[in-house]
Amino acid sequence: MAITGKNLIAGQWTGETQEGFVAFNAVLNQPMTDKFADASEQEVETAITQAHQAFITYSQLTANERANFLDTIGEQIIALGDELIATASAETGLPVARITGERGRTVGQLGLFANLLRSGEYQGIIEHANPTREPLPKPDTRLGYLPVGVVAVFGASNFPLAFSTAGGDTASALAAGCPVVMKAHTAHPATAELVAQAILKAIELCDLDNGVFSLIQGENYAISSQIVTHPLVKAVGFTGSERVGMILQQQINQRAEPIPFYGELGSVNPQFVMANKLAADASEIAQGLVASLMMGQGQFCTSPGIWVVVDDENYATFEQSAIEAIQTQPAGVMLTPGIRECYQSTVSHWQNLTGVKMLAVGQQGDAHLCTAALFSTDIANFIENPALQEEVFGSCALIVKCTDFAQMQQFVTLLRGNLTASIHAVDADIEQARAIAQPLAHKVGRLIYNQMPTGVEVCASMNHGGPFPASTNVRSTSVGSEAIKRFQRPICYQNMPKALLPSLLQD
Amino acid sequence: MAITGKNLIAGQWTGETQEGFVAFNAVLNQPMTDKFADASEQEVETAITQAHQAFITYSQLTANERANFLDTIGEQIIALGDELIATASAETGLPVARITGERGRTVGQLGLFANLLRSGEYQGIIEHANPTREPLPKPDTRLGYLPVGVVAVFGASNFPLAFSTAGGDTASALAAGCPVVMKAHTAHPATAELVAQAILKAIELCDLDNGVFSLIQGENYAISSQIVTHPLVKAVGFTGSERVGMILQQQINQRAEPIPFYGELGSVNPQFVMANKLAADASEIAQGLVASLMMGQGQFCTSPGIWVVVDDENYATFEQSAIEAIQTQPAGVMLTPGIRECYQSTVSHWQNLTGVKMLAVGQQGDAHLCTAALFSTDIANFIENPALQEEVFGSCALIVKCTDFAQMQQFVTLLRGNLTASIHAVDADIEQARAIAQPLAHKVGRLIYNQMPTGVEVCASMNHGGPFPASTNVRSTSVGSEAIKRFQRPICYQNMPKALLPSLLQD
Repeated sequence: MAITGKNLIAGQWTGETQEGFVAFNAVLNQPMTDKFADASEQEVETAITQAHQAFITYSQLTANERANFLDTIGEQIIALGDELIATASAETGLPVARITGERGRTVGQLGLFANLLRSGEYQGIIEHANPTREPLPKPDTRLGYLPVGVVAVFGASNFPLAFSTAGGDTASALAAGCPVVMKAHTAHPATAELVAQAILKAIELCDLDNGVFSLIQGENYAISSQIVTHPLVKAVGFTGSERVGMILQQQINQRAEPIPFYGELGSVNPQFVMANKLAADASEIAQGLVASLMMGQGQFCTSPGIWVVVDDENYATFEQSAIEAIQTQPAGVMLTPGIRECYQSTVSHWQNLTGVKMLAVGQQGDAHLCTAALFSTDIANFIENPALQEEVFGSCALIVKCTDFAQMQQFVTLLRGNLTASIHAVDADIEQARAIAQPLAHKVGRLIYNQMPTGVEVCASMNHGGPFPASTNVRSTSVGSEAIKRFQRPICYQNMPKALLPSLLQD
Repeated sequence: MAITGKNLIAGQWTGETQEGFVAFNAVLNQPMTDKFADASEQEVETAITQAHQAFITYSQLTANERANFLDTIGEQIIALGDELIATASAETGLPVARITGERGRTVGQLGLFANLLRSGEYQGIIEHANPTREPLPKPDTRLGYLPVGVVAVFGASNFPLAFSTAGGDTASALAAGCPVVMKAHTAHPATAELVAQAILKAIELCDLDNGVFSLIQGENYAISSQIVTHPLVKAVGFTGSERVGMILQQQINQRAEPIPFYGELGSVNPQFVMANKLAADASEIAQGLVASLMMGQGQFCTSPGIWVVVDDENYATFEQSAIEAIQTQPAGVMLTPGIRECYQSTVSHWQNLTGVKMLAVGQQGDAHLCTAALFSTDIANFIENPALQEEVFGSCALIVKCTDFAQMQQFVTLLRGNLTASIHAVDADIEQARAIAQPLAHKVGRLIYNQMPTGVEVCASMNHGGPFPASTNVRSTSVGSEAIKRFQRPICYQNMPKALLPSLLQD
């Protein structure tokens, strides 16, 4: 399908692309030809007010009707065919195989929520009246859930499909019964438009109000501010950097009415290699960590950024294996020139830090390609340089060498919040693993044993979130079926006649 | 037991009462003799850091151990005997029977959470590994819940027991595994100290870390600010006015790390009397509304502040019955002189508002007593005076007269968020009731049919919250067993050996 470069505002493609911005081909390292319209203040206003209008009917759909809508979006995404794959790959530099897999995950997520809705889960608690209870009768009370209202979603740079236009946030909001106003990421506007075309097709096929979904394009920061401070927006989903996330948080803090902000921000995903594991598998674990680090050129929110190891007699083997593995890594394309520059500047900065040693770099490539890097430091210098605990978005890892297990335990106390942490251990490590696991659990959203952090299972028992700055809302997950709860809120129906109860709360 | 007037800081009674504040006897309208210490900055700091320290052991207690602690607190509250009842009644002006009932509710709430813990509920979702799944194996993932950390709770003026020192917020936080730093309300410091004595006794009997509970006394606003902005405080529970709640919200917004603020603020709890109900029971419903309004001298967060009625041929009977019922109401004691002055000033203000008619007042009493008041207005003037939608804390109600059902529907669209709303109807009203109920559900936390809003059932299916300003966090309840979720957060355990899993997530 042709790319219009326009915004999708409640069913209408509008906007002036003449003065707009261009997409960037990450693989070719050059601007693309299509131009995209910066949404106007009026377009944003229309998108939000039409979403609010659509809430009246959309919130009243049956669970089955919403499930069919989600499945139809998935079908229409598949129907976009190879054009979607080629476009997303060009805009992000992510390989075709990866994008194809991500499309499967995206459609799978929509299906997960469709199945959840069809299962009738999350429909609350029924407690009947007890008119003879003393000292007071108990009324009939039934706890149900309502959608919160219009949800604003911000697309992520690193998952052009699974965390973007029809990604997890959109799927969970639509599943909950909330219209979505989507702000596309400027790194992949054509991909966003194609997916928005698919959603519009699904809206038409399901005969829904066009206000249920709008796509906002734009480079202008004022657009984001307008969206998150709008009184009709009732929740915001965001996946991105701590810096940008906290700008949005501060804007949201200015609102007269507080609303939930689900920001998934930075994480270094510490990897703890226990002593007996190191003795048994020093090379294998080092190679595994490098492989995990290189996924998506390190541009995964679950990328293993810090490796914590005791500097014992097996450490040298571990370090040498990691160095050798890093040195074989080819230079790679990054998502955007801005992300590449940020990565390179951090690596340069670390090279000049006292007490931080560069152990190895990957292979060099063309100027626009990025090279992996491995550093090491000790606890004293880790404490000295708090910036070492900030996420480096890209294939850069830091080994924190501990003199003994007590220092490894001390490291846990120094940690900020993270999405994940892994403990790599063998049976003989179990007591030390337990001693680490207990405090570490309070620092992460997902605690992993003997597996790498990259690769997030999309299921009911997943949690993708964690203490700040991993998330701005530790009580929620942005992956898995529990994510629907972010856009629902409880309501108690007391003494309601059956005719006025939601069908799933009737006896 | 003797009242020390001191703060309970992690097991120690500390503070200088000489320069402190005095409690006020609401019934006698005179200051009491005991003086209470304004907590110092250092005392607040110690309370919070000791709570954080206690989190290490308290968060690791078994569910049974926490349940026993909650039950022991309840037993120790009962063991305070008549002194607690007499003290709370004197400090608040609430009758002995009411306080006795509230004590039962408070102990019942503690027991509800104890039973919840013993039942093993809220222990998550287990999904086993599937090593043969294509294209990738599924790891073993188990969703559990962890306590969030130190919780700060602010006592409410109007429920000296059930929403104060060992009230719902404290009970749910302790149940979740969170230590509590309690800021006592200045309206009932002696009651707070007695209950804190009971909690300390329970801590000793259960052999827990004294940091699990501290009681902060004080009139100084800087204390509250210090508490809610402290980095080690991870959630805040508050029940009070919209004005004070939003001051706390703004202070919390200044934090580097966002935390949840569970503020239960203002609500007018609109009551819709449908046409056929009015025809059938005009007098009875008017009397019922007045009786509900007078509970606790109108100082209930669920007090029915606005009554919405169509001005048809049965309206005069309704209005006349309401007037007569109001006129018989004796003047009453209010919780504090400040609350009384605020109430009287609002009633005076309303008397001078164009388009707002004073229909009736209750009986006059001594200068320190408060008189019920009933007003009426129409939709146009309701729109003209947005302040009419702000909660009046006290026995003052406003009838909004609609010309027809369409205006009643319009009224729903004008509403801000509320804790509750009631629809009073007979069978013949069902279609109009449905037309009101659907949009009204999106404005309230609890939707009630043919019952008064006062009296909140404490059970699993209760929701006490609602859209802002009823609550600052629409996704949570402050009453009922679901309240435990406010102080828990999810964690996913991936591929964990049984020995490192919480017992309830083991197979």
